[in-house]
Amino acid sequence: MNIEVVAVGTELLLGQIVDTNSSWIGEQLAAAGLNSYFQTKVGDNPARIREVLELALSRSDAVICCGGLGPTQDDLTRDVIAEVMGVELVTDDALVAKIANMFSSRGRRMPENNLRQAQVPKGARAMDIQPGTAPGLICPIDVTDGDGTKTSKVIYAVPGVPYEMKKMVEGVIIEDLIARSGEVAVIRSRVLRTWGMSESGLAEILADRIVELDNIGNPTLAFLASGVEGLKVRITAKAADDAAAQEILDAEEAQLLPIIGEWVFGRDEQNMEAVVIAKCAELGFTLAVAESVTGGYLSGRLCAVPGASAVFKGAVVAYDPAVKHNILGVPEGPVVSEETAVAMAQGVREALGADIGIATTGVAGPEELEGNPVGTVCLAVAAADGAIATTVQMPGDRERIRQFSTIAVLNMFRKTLL
Amino acid sequence: MNIEVVAVGTELLLGQIVDTNSSWIGEQLAAAGLNSYFQTKVGDNPARIREVLELALSRSDAVICCGGLGPTQDDLTRDVIAEVMGVELVTDDALVAKIANMFSSRGRRMPENNLRQAQVPKGARAMDIQPGTAPGLICPIDVTDGDGTKTSKVIYAVPGVPYEMKKMVEGVIIEDLIARSGEVAVIRSRVLRTWGMSESGLAEILADRIVELDNIGNPTLAFLASGVEGLKVRITAKAADDAAAQEILDAEEAQLLPIIGEWVFGRDEQNMEAVVIAKCAELGFTLAVAESVTGGYLSGRLCAVPGASAVFKGAVVAYDPAVKHNILGVPEGPVVSEETAVAMAQGVREALGADIGIATTGVAGPEELEGNPVGTVCLAVAAADGAIATTVQMPGDRERIRQFSTIAVLNMFRKTLL
Repeated sequence: MNIEVVAVGTELLLGQIVDTNSSWIGEQLAAAGLNSYFQTKVGDNPARIREVLELALSRSDAVICCGGLGPTQDDLTRDVIAEVMGVELVTDDALVAKIANMFSSRGRRMPENNLRQAQVPKGARAMDIQPGTAPGLICPIDVTDGDGTKTSKVIYAVPGVPYEMKKMVEGVIIEDLIARSGEVAVIRSRVLRTWGMSESGLAEILADRIVELDNIGNPTLAFLASGVEGLKVRITAKAADDAAAQEILDAEEAQLLPIIGEWVFGRDEQNMEAVVIAKCAELGFTLAVAESVTGGYLSGRLCAVPGASAVFKGAVVAYDPAVKHNILGVPEGPVVSEETAVAMAQGVREALGADIGIATTGVAGPEELEGNPVGTVCLAVAAADGAIATTVQMPGDRERIRQFSTIAVLNMFRKTLL
Repeated sequence: MNIEVVAVGTELLLGQIVDTNSSWIGEQLAAAGLNSYFQTKVGDNPARIREVLELALSRSDAVICCGGLGPTQDDLTRDVIAEVMGVELVTDDALVAKIANMFSSRGRRMPENNLRQAQVPKGARAMDIQPGTAPGLICPIDVTDGDGTKTSKVIYAVPGVPYEMKKMVEGVIIEDLIARSGEVAVIRSRVLRTWGMSESGLAEILADRIVELDNIGNPTLAFLASGVEGLKVRITAKAADDAAAQEILDAEEAQLLPIIGEWVFGRDEQNMEAVVIAKCAELGFTLAVAESVTGGYLSGRLCAVPGASAVFKGAVVAYDPAVKHNILGVPEGPVVSEETAVAMAQGVREALGADIGIATTGVAGPEELEGNPVGTVCLAVAAADGAIATTVQMPGDRERIRQFSTIAVLNMFRKTLL
């Protein structure tokens, strides 16, 4: 089964937004064992959108069309799909009620324009999952080819807002495509999340196994550097059913863990924050954070973990050095030092009444500080009975420095918990 | 003149690499006043590359084809272009010497494979600018349309390596295209960033002007919902030169501001944090933040503004209610209330020694809190002489709640500064 992706939006052609949606969708299709041979970007022009959709339908079995479902006059995807299907747009009363309710629950009046979003090509239906005002659409269509054969195909229309698009692709489209494909094979992946070894380092350590897997062909291995989410090692298996796929994944994980286990901190959706929060909850520890170089980012990551409130007390962002002294009781001295990091961790632990304090201080750039180059970061973890600290040199820009500092200090803490 | 971009590479379809090349090329074409209506990604498959190139030549005047010029067997762009042109590949001896020299100057032997890179479709020529071993190619081609008319078109082939591609587009292709087009037009955009009115609401208020602009055709308007970056209104103008384009943008901005000015907070790259930090710096105010529902995110955004350190003292993330009481001096009472938000803002202002305190508290979910539904957020701004607060109902998930809370509280503060 071949699936084609069409991204709609003049801003994509003008390079004002990079089309990451198509790439992400391509990744999901590949993971599900679905082929995808073409991806096209087209502007907000009805004739050209139609041309692209008709071409895509002629050469692929299904089309995922991304963008152009907003409430304004330049959102044309609904109208063009109705044209391609040769049907009228009809107002879906259930959608009107749903959208009106989104506004009224926020105490706002629904603008007249949003009624456009409740219009659906006749014969199409809205997806159940709808995170925003734009409904996703499933539009079945019979395509007649050169020799008169009719084939049932489908256009999925999803909003261009990445969050909304992802929910619909994950929750509705992939499943629908697999059902349509009629194949009984399933593709399942498992991610081993690692920290502390580079991508090329892991590839080198696993070189023999990679060659073996290339010969066997199933499962496959892939490496994905993912910033604060860690360096992911993804195992993908194809099998007749879920149980058989899980068996292959289990066997491969058992092969890999003796080789790379010391860097593995989590599986699948478990990020470093989630692992640390869960371990603290299990041990009954509470946690407080003092941040300078990470500026609130570390705290924000911890708060995003469901159930964080049982463990995480809060944070002090000491951007001005005076805050380090006044709130955290850090003695005068250099900003970027392990002593300061430890004093911050101890200070926030006491100030917020937590069992454990963790701290980051360093040089986010653009200029060096106290003779330390950009990317120098001191990390500390403190408890009532002592503290540990380390200095690391991070690569790259401000954003990567704060991501790497965050995962590195949490990993340091995690190791002390084991 | 219409230029189409084709990106070649299976890794682009699989989402292993995001195709930023096409976006960047689109931006350069727009800046040079050249139209671009389609961008296509295709894998390393000769039949499909040919299909895409032939379609592009049929509907556009020029094609920029990116990738597939490397030395290995899966680099097929040269071969397919020769097929499309209906010519042979010939070895260019000057290129052989040039590539061999690149290796020998680094003390390396040239692998046999690299000779492939010295092959050029007969009638095409290599670009003078060649940063790597892959030469860029200019391939003129006469395209015959349905009624037998012949038109001179061109395919430019450039490597997929961004650095090499950019040098060739900037140094060779744009100039060549402008010479071919015989036009001197430029395209310029201006973004008005807004907050406080929905996309459909703005479109409704601007409906008359949108209809007028649709008739005039230049400039054009577009709306872009961008989370914490605000809701962007983009004006795009086409003109003979930069000065004339800026004049059109100025005139349109002057038309729009009386209608939507009350929601405009910045222009182009100015986000809300940058506007607030700049205004505080101008007035000599320092700033501290108390966060509960935003969990450090607001602080992280402020820290990311260059020059923030002159204004921003730091933050207290009071995730545990006890931290609100102990560090910020917030009296006992409900967590989600305007009184609590004001007490947090006053508390952090005093604790961190800042002129202004701003605070967020609310329900990030997944469950309701104190009878308030998910998305209920109280925001406050406090100074020595008083405070203001408001309660808003945010849509969506945890991530959007914290983004919208952040921009909303900063906007509330910004308005008090005016």
